[in-house]
Amino acid sequence: MDRMKPNISMAVIRRLPKYYRYLNELMEKGITRISSKEFGRILGFTASQIRQDLNCFGGFGQQGYGYNVRELRDEIANILGINKTKNAIIVGAGNLGQAIANYSGFRGSGFVLKAMFDINPRLVGISIRDIKIMDIDDMGEFIKNSGVNAGIICTPKEGAQSVADRLTGEGIKAIWNFAPTDLEVPEDVIVENVHLSESLMVLAYMMNERDRMENTQ
Amino acid sequence: MDRMKPNISMAVIRRLPKYYRYLNELMEKGITRISSKEFGRILGFTASQIRQDLNCFGGFGQQGYGYNVRELRDEIANILGINKTKNAIIVGAGNLGQAIANYSGFRGSGFVLKAMFDINPRLVGISIRDIKIMDIDDMGEFIKNSGVNAGIICTPKEGAQSVADRLTGEGIKAIWNFAPTDLEVPEDVIVENVHLSESLMVLAYMMNERDRMENTQ
Repeated sequence: MDRMKPNISMAVIRRLPKYYRYLNELMEKGITRISSKEFGRILGFTASQIRQDLNCFGGFGQQGYGYNVRELRDEIANILGINKTKNAIIVGAGNLGQAIANYSGFRGSGFVLKAMFDINPRLVGISIRDIKIMDIDDMGEFIKNSGVNAGIICTPKEGAQSVADRLTGEGIKAIWNFAPTDLEVPEDVIVENVHLSESLMVLAYMMNERDRMENTQ
Repeated sequence: MDRMKPNISMAVIRRLPKYYRYLNELMEKGITRISSKEFGRILGFTASQIRQDLNCFGGFGQQGYGYNVRELRDEIANILGINKTKNAIIVGAGNLGQAIANYSGFRGSGFVLKAMFDINPRLVGISIRDIKIMDIDDMGEFIKNSGVNAGIICTPKEGAQSVADRLTGEGIKAIWNFAPTDLEVPEDVIVENVHLSESLMVLAYMMNERDRMENTQ
């Protein structure tokens, strides 16, 4: 059975991981079912928002019963595809790349980190959490031989586009990009950006806005 | 003059850093003015989207002339408040905290990193980029004496809430949170989250969705 409807908005998709995280926490607490009202309360959404979101995927709740926590959790995992194994490599093994290599959240999304690559000969050969840092010139062969599905770009802004070109040139169709730039990639390549500077500027805005409000009161 | 209108949506605010980044790139290329159409093209937005967004703040363009790149850049910087200095500390000096300490984007948003804190005695005393890692028990006094405006939480999920409680208890009103959890804070405290696992799950979803599309073709 295919529960998916086409054209689900990215806004809904971006809320699914939060649903998933909270459902896991409910399971850890031994809670087996939850109403959309109560689920909304802990998530900070309205009950109707939750029903609307989950209806995009066919709807799982039962009138008067609420949601079965484990069933809904498993369905969302299935929709997100996080139960499917995907091999990833990190390109750029500096501080950020090493921090990401140490990041413990890969497995929870079905990603397995296979290798890291860098141009810096002082980094090549070092291992981070059993993940070897290799020379970027060996990347093409590694991708061919190891079934890599995704590349994680942790280079500075300047090197990011050429790394993206190399990755897509080797057939990689999914990129998790930490470099503070928008990559140009072929149409069939997926890019998910983590733009830290944009997040920090939004924090700056909110702090500034609050100061402004306080000063005009 | 106060150009701000109340109730600007967060969706608009979250686009401003991107405008700002592209305006800087235009300046670097020596481009002094740009039409909303051309600006839209390089940003991937429509011209009307851009005019609408910038109208929220009073509108800067002139019919038939377009936008003055430097003027618009400076206005957005002003709106974001990134030209105002804000002191920040990192709590949690493990891999992620150290990577964030090495992050070079603070100054661009007006943040100055003042210190790092951890509970691990093996980390206390070490310096990362001239930023000293201190014992978390000295945090309260440091905040009092150093005019700290923002806390950056880089702890595991488990410790994050108690760190948030300590920060807000010391009067910190802004948190940049990297821990994979939603913090409960007093109403007047701003929290900006960077949830890496949610971003990674969205990437997983898009990869899964593409596979699904290809398999049904």
